[in-house]
Amino acid sequence: MCQLLALNCAEPTDVSFSLTGFAARGGLTDHHVDGWGVAFYEDRACRVFVDEKPAYQSPVAEFLKSYPIKSRNVVAHIRKATQGGARVENCHPFMRELRGQQWVFAHNGDLQPLDGPEHGPYAQVGTTDSEAAFCFIMNRLYAHFAAQANTAPGVDDIDAVFDVIEQATRTLNPYGIFNFVLSNGQAQFAYCSTRLSYVIRHWPFSSARLVDGDLSVDFAERGTPADRTAVIATTPLTDEVWTACEPGDLLMFRSGALVRRAHVPVPAEVLATAKYAPSELSAVPA
Amino acid sequence: MCQLLALNCAEPTDVSFSLTGFAARGGLTDHHVDGWGVAFYEDRACRVFVDEKPAYQSPVAEFLKSYPIKSRNVVAHIRKATQGGARVENCHPFMRELRGQQWVFAHNGDLQPLDGPEHGPYAQVGTTDSEAAFCFIMNRLYAHFAAQANTAPGVDDIDAVFDVIEQATRTLNPYGIFNFVLSNGQAQFAYCSTRLSYVIRHWPFSSARLVDGDLSVDFAERGTPADRTAVIATTPLTDEVWTACEPGDLLMFRSGALVRRAHVPVPAEVLATAKYAPSELSAVPA
Repeated sequence: MCQLLALNCAEPTDVSFSLTGFAARGGLTDHHVDGWGVAFYEDRACRVFVDEKPAYQSPVAEFLKSYPIKSRNVVAHIRKATQGGARVENCHPFMRELRGQQWVFAHNGDLQPLDGPEHGPYAQVGTTDSEAAFCFIMNRLYAHFAAQANTAPGVDDIDAVFDVIEQATRTLNPYGIFNFVLSNGQAQFAYCSTRLSYVIRHWPFSSARLVDGDLSVDFAERGTPADRTAVIATTPLTDEVWTACEPGDLLMFRSGALVRRAHVPVPAEVLATAKYAPSELSAVPA
Repeated sequence: MCQLLALNCAEPTDVSFSLTGFAARGGLTDHHVDGWGVAFYEDRACRVFVDEKPAYQSPVAEFLKSYPIKSRNVVAHIRKATQGGARVENCHPFMRELRGQQWVFAHNGDLQPLDGPEHGPYAQVGTTDSEAAFCFIMNRLYAHFAAQANTAPGVDDIDAVFDVIEQATRTLNPYGIFNFVLSNGQAQFAYCSTRLSYVIRHWPFSSARLVDGDLSVDFAERGTPADRTAVIATTPLTDEVWTACEPGDLLMFRSGALVRRAHVPVPAEVLATAKYAPSELSAVPA
């Protein structure tokens, strides 16, 4: 299994603190050694950095710590391969463009092969179940938003985007464990199939201590009333009070706030394959 | 105007030598200060690094010098903005996926606005004429190779890809100066609208000295008979014997060799707007 991290911020935010704790899980405090990746939105642009090396010894990760990018939306992933070798094309997050927006996706779980690719322009480059699922969602979004070109509704209708993602999740759910984070730079979508938590930092800020390293940050020193950050991760990164999602939670975050929630039931046979029962989630070590 | 660099190699090759000379043009030996970027193919994967800072003082460029990636296909670009601000989304190379392959594109020139976007799934994220032209080409490729999904011919038919690019270039040519490099990881395509040169390095290798920096490499020390590298650039990077392309040359390189050439005439009114007449090309300083 892999680890997910996503951030959604009201203001462009230096996320190197969260990234430092997260990168430690790539081989140092946890066993996710088959590559890692992070995507940063800067307004309309999205830069993706991936590496097939373990995050804790990746030169790309080291570089990013010294070159913090300020971003409103971040998607990161540390990989423990279940399907697909430790190759660059199999590293999450994956990125595709739709209607002039970059979309990025990272997955934690393990899916059975889909019955066939959804018809549409998006096809996988690598060999993972995760990229296949992402292409499925993108083809669904394309069918809804872009197939009729300029007469189609815009992807700026973020609630319509949520609806399409909800339907696609319903379709993909029976194939297996499907925790994911997905962003188009306008919102952060997150689905809890078996395990996902989040915390929202807002003014007045307090300090936080990383679970995975000897590092604390006093956010009160730099936060302003305009700042608000939602941090979503497979398991809590810090000693703050995190909210454990329920299996089936599909969440949408905008400007650092949880703005919409839907319940997409996880089939019982999928939950049965999960390593940890949902009720144990808060007690699971990172 | 901008500067282009592309490499096409028979074997995975460390291209940091060429990149060092090229990066110097981003503000040090030339005035291309509005960002830069480079794309490396590693088998099916393609990693793109872009930065809106001048290449000669970019932390990303510095990092790449110390973390050389071995690649068979590289596309790089240094930007002097003519259209679109110095923003990350306007930095070349641009990347899109088509039928499970990553395609990257970089442009040197200046195009009038197209009469309308070509119908298809690809739309620009930024505001440059270059990305609009790339999306035009990708939509043409999509119409040819992917619109009928699995019944369409494969993009592995590289000569069919060449034909579509040739036709798209013919359509785009009247809009202005359109030097470009384009790759799908299988081949390197290069078009000379006004200015482009190339050199092919093969066994037995000799040494080369950078035009833009005090650096020489003796390729004989590390090259083998299996190695062969085509280097394509706006102007020669080294003191080797480069071939200046003729305006209208559309070239395809595979495994470090020039394998196909077509002539796509450049309209006289476009040539008239070029800063340098074609006959002066070899005398133009870098």
